[in-house]
Amino acid sequence: MLLDATASGVYPIAPTPFHPDGKVDEGSIDRLIEHYIGCGADGTTVLGVMGEAPKLEPEESLSIATRFIEGMGERPVIVGVSAPGLAAMSRLARSVMERGAAGVMIAPLPSLRTDDQITGYYRQAVEAIGPDIPFVIQDYPLTFTVQMTPHVIQRIVNENPSCVMLKHEDWPGLEKISALRAFEAQGSMRRISILTGNGGLFLDFETERGADGAMTGYAFPEMLADVVRFQKSGQRDKAHDIFDAHLPLLRYEQQQGIGLAVRKYVLMKRGWIASDAQRKPGAALSAAARAEVDYLLTRLSHRDSRAGF
Amino acid sequence: MLLDATASGVYPIAPTPFHPDGKVDEGSIDRLIEHYIGCGADGTTVLGVMGEAPKLEPEESLSIATRFIEGMGERPVIVGVSAPGLAAMSRLARSVMERGAAGVMIAPLPSLRTDDQITGYYRQAVEAIGPDIPFVIQDYPLTFTVQMTPHVIQRIVNENPSCVMLKHEDWPGLEKISALRAFEAQGSMRRISILTGNGGLFLDFETERGADGAMTGYAFPEMLADVVRFQKSGQRDKAHDIFDAHLPLLRYEQQQGIGLAVRKYVLMKRGWIASDAQRKPGAALSAAARAEVDYLLTRLSHRDSRAGF
Amino acid sequence: MLLDATASGVYPIAPTPFHPDGKVDEGSIDRLIEHYIGCGADGTTVLGVMGEAPKLEPEESLSIATRFIEGMGERPVIVGVSAPGLAAMSRLARSVMERGAAGVMIAPLPSLRTDDQITGYYRQAVEAIGPDIPFVIQDYPLTFTVQMTPHVIQRIVNENPSCVMLKHEDWPGLEKISALRAFEAQGSMRRISILTGNGGLFLDFETERGADGAMTGYAFPEMLADVVRFQKSGQRDKAHDIFDAHLPLLRYEQQQGIGLAVRKYVLMKRGWIASDAQRKPGAALSAAARAEVDYLLTRLSHRDSRAGF
Amino acid sequence: MLLDATASGVYPIAPTPFHPDGKVDEGSIDRLIEHYIGCGADGTTVLGVMGEAPKLEPEESLSIATRFIEGMGERPVIVGVSAPGLAAMSRLARSVMERGAAGVMIAPLPSLRTDDQITGYYRQAVEAIGPDIPFVIQDYPLTFTVQMTPHVIQRIVNENPSCVMLKHEDWPGLEKISALRAFEAQGSMRRISILTGNGGLFLDFETERGADGAMTGYAFPEMLADVVRFQKSGQRDKAHDIFDAHLPLLRYEQQQGIGLAVRKYVLMKRGWIASDAQRKPGAALSAAARAEVDYLLTRLSHRDSRAGF
Repeated sequence: MLLDATASGVYPIAPTPFHPDGKVDEGSIDRLIEHYIGCGADGTTVLGVMGEAPKLEPEESLSIATRFIEGMGERPVIVGVSAPGLAAMSRLARSVMERGAAGVMIAPLPSLRTDDQITGYYRQAVEAIGPDIPFVIQDYPLTFTVQMTPHVIQRIVNENPSCVMLKHEDWPGLEKISALRAFEAQGSMRRISILTGNGGLFLDFETERGADGAMTGYAFPEMLADVVRFQKSGQRDKAHDIFDAHLPLLRYEQQQGIGLAVRKYVLMKRGWIASDAQRKPGAALSAAARAEVDYLLTRLSHRDSRAGF
Repeated sequence: MLLDATASGVYPIAPTPFHPDGKVDEGSIDRLIEHYIGCGADGTTVLGVMGEAPKLEPEESLSIATRFIEGMGERPVIVGVSAPGLAAMSRLARSVMERGAAGVMIAPLPSLRTDDQITGYYRQAVEAIGPDIPFVIQDYPLTFTVQMTPHVIQRIVNENPSCVMLKHEDWPGLEKISALRAFEAQGSMRRISILTGNGGLFLDFETERGADGAMTGYAFPEMLADVVRFQKSGQRDKAHDIFDAHLPLLRYEQQQGIGLAVRKYVLMKRGWIASDAQRKPGAALSAAARAEVDYLLTRLSHRDSRAGF
Repeated sequence: MLLDATASGVYPIAPTPFHPDGKVDEGSIDRLIEHYIGCGADGTTVLGVMGEAPKLEPEESLSIATRFIEGMGERPVIVGVSAPGLAAMSRLARSVMERGAAGVMIAPLPSLRTDDQITGYYRQAVEAIGPDIPFVIQDYPLTFTVQMTPHVIQRIVNENPSCVMLKHEDWPGLEKISALRAFEAQGSMRRISILTGNGGLFLDFETERGADGAMTGYAFPEMLADVVRFQKSGQRDKAHDIFDAHLPLLRYEQQQGIGLAVRKYVLMKRGWIASDAQRKPGAALSAAARAEVDYLLTRLSHRDSRAGF
Repeated sequence: MLLDATASGVYPIAPTPFHPDGKVDEGSIDRLIEHYIGCGADGTTVLGVMGEAPKLEPEESLSIATRFIEGMGERPVIVGVSAPGLAAMSRLARSVMERGAAGVMIAPLPSLRTDDQITGYYRQAVEAIGPDIPFVIQDYPLTFTVQMTPHVIQRIVNENPSCVMLKHEDWPGLEKISALRAFEAQGSMRRISILTGNGGLFLDFETERGADGAMTGYAFPEMLADVVRFQKSGQRDKAHDIFDAHLPLLRYEQQQGIGLAVRKYVLMKRGWIASDAQRKPGAALSAAARAEVDYLLTRLSHRDSRAGF
């Protein structure tokens, strides 16, 4: 089933689990899938920044994506296909769509600066992968150093009918969501799905501003699902209560460069993956950092019983 | 009294209060000072990024700094003197020291890249202001785009005896504090004071890693003082409890570009300043954003009685 | 006389001459003016990047600009007023206009990224200095890291009637000149003057693409004047011949960071300024570099008799 | 034969020739090789920035490199293996060495900032490809935004015995060559080969500062060979004369973003490649730009008879 603009809910960004020797750990992929489904994920996104995509061989990328696609069943899998060259992007995009992916995610090249460069790049990318593959714009200035205004996103959406979703992770970004939803209300932009990333740091308000859900790798996706569900059903305070309970850990995960190490460590402690190994180059947690995470987990378990160990 | 490496506690970064017409609001300066002292501040820092320093005329800068210096009495006032040119930096530094400032804070020029460029710049800055003025390194990569490794800070400290403090706001930065304290323990770096900024987002752990306190503009400095005091007295859980109660708002303030607007709005609601006006160019809060802050304040008041309105 | 969109010819970017002790050398200013006029300059621009503007005290800036304005007589003087804050920009702009400047030059803040940020900044700047002061856009991505597309320049021009000139120094930039002139031909942009900088490295073709002249600090402005004059009178080969004769030296001057040192050294050797001293921080030429410049000057003197020593 | 620190002379950076439909043009590879050898090239470098490497599929990269290796015979071929991930880098490096490459070239990741990050990256890269593959550091700040001081290069050389060459293309960079040669003279750095890039814009003086030759893609490599040969034999003026004759065109080629289009166009006009087609995304020359190149070629043919058409 292809991704479309009605997508909503929680799409965890999946890490790529490795064995300590660097080999892909397929058993842990299966366990991740099982837990994602169990905690209410509506889909998943693989081979993103957090999936250590640039460290994978082309065949590994395809094999990992395929395993997630098969395991998630009816639930849509979005595959990150960002690459320095359009040839590699196009090949991966077509391969994963053939294997059942719901759509692909495309980040801008870090060298893009002006509005025209950014919109031009998305035109070229769509030309390369073909107009029939639904795609997601990844708007993450902190990592990619590319700043897209609401008007630029509007242009990309209007120029490319296959654009169905925005992975919103600008920071700050609340006004951007409001601006995009206002474009839609005015009829100057086609309706798209907006899922938010940025580690979930503003998910409590993003859902109130018009986001359809979350696409991030926080190690307790059940909390993300709670927030989205409570907000949809009008239980604002309950949404904030559960969000606030997790905020100290969520904030700790949101450290550029070591966030993935924190997440893999927590997922390992939860038993969702067997090892927190990363491929090189990758930042490891110090003993002090691990102890800090342990402390945060203990405190969290007093506030959210699902977080007990 | 001159600033030295034993400085500790809480130094709120003071905003510059303006009237709605853009004039400096001196009455609000006096009220700010009164409240800072009342909530346990050990000193204050003025004319930083948050003080809208680049929007001030030279005489205004001097006059504002002087008013803070006089109002704070025995408590040290640190003055931001960062400037594109060393002549302006030197003149402001000497002027405020003559009027009783305890020391100055110097940020790196945004164009600096290599280790040698950064250390060279601090040598030139010290040559310009003179070796007798105690200074603070401001290490804020997110804003200044300059990355200083622990070794670079070590070199700056060792080469410049007048360097007495680091305003630490790297992100992530916990390992950097540990690395610097390890240098001191090994005897390869002179002991300096480390106060942390970054909006306080990691203050709970920074104090555990060896920071001496906080230097940030969060609108409830009494909480910063609590965290520092509880940590010093070994009450770890209490420190985290009060920190966590404030984290939702503190996180909201930590939005690049609009953080100052949030802080001024909260300070105005607390009655510490008369208006949340900023000089142009400055980002104003939308109605939606103000409502979000109001909601966060209401929730906060249930957890910390000092936050009631 | 105010600057307007008909301005053309050569506006040398003037360095600020200093005595070896760092004091401003007013006698050398007078000599520079005399030589500029003697070699056919149509105006001059002061307090630009090359004028070491950020190293000057406010009173010095005003005093230097005034001396140039008085010395140049009827010929227009453009004053760089770029500053981190709008208050300082506005004050300098008004002061120099009162003293007879023809217009001001405004560079974008280095932090600007998106089209909307850039056009917004120029709106704010015009609001700050007032709509009656003619201004020049400085488009120099290599130094300011801000990229303006032709459409952005079009918006700035159309939104701000007081914008009369573009100092074009994008690199590459030939197509940009053509695009802007095409906008004018189509009637979608008001006619402006375009003078080119970038050290003159592409002046030979820029004049053919539609530039009205040169605004750069190359130490032989008589060559710039030759190129512009020959091109205007249809003597293409002669324009390129004289340009090519100077290109080895001109290219040598165009080294980021040391270009000013080269220019001051050559101007000193020509007797136009008394010393090549720069204020700190400033890159000095090594003995090897000075010998290289000497060698280039010797070679140049065989091709252009005005370059003999 | 493996590359070592005695390498010198001219290594043209080879473009990847494509047919207008985007397929690799193997016949043009053969013709390029023939001409390179004919004009005195000592080796060649393939799959660099100019080789459109990121636009190639992995098998294409290997096949192109192999064809060059076979065609160049005894002359060393250096293969660019820079990649976002170490897995891809390592695989390509081993594959081309098995097929007879002399060594590989590694550019830093654009995200690297501090000295420690840069040296750490080269350690990891050597670990990934193995310590037995000779490698070249590519130091090109303008394109990669990474600034390496002489001390950083010294550390990389001393820490990694397999580092045998620097492709120097810092700008300005003359003092860097002198600094590195001084380290060698003092015994604080092992002797390496230095070939210079940067389009050759400073080759005339780089050879005088201690460079061993040129590694750049200027479309008349015979001129590069002349300059290197004349300088080695002490004919300084002759070296500069031939260099200056080519400087107007060489400077024109040195336009970021369109330089490759200019070079392919000139190589096509010379009959060295059949088409100037680039894979997308790639900047095409406008009609005006082509006419400018034609004009420069006509002028060049009057100064260097080998440039006639």
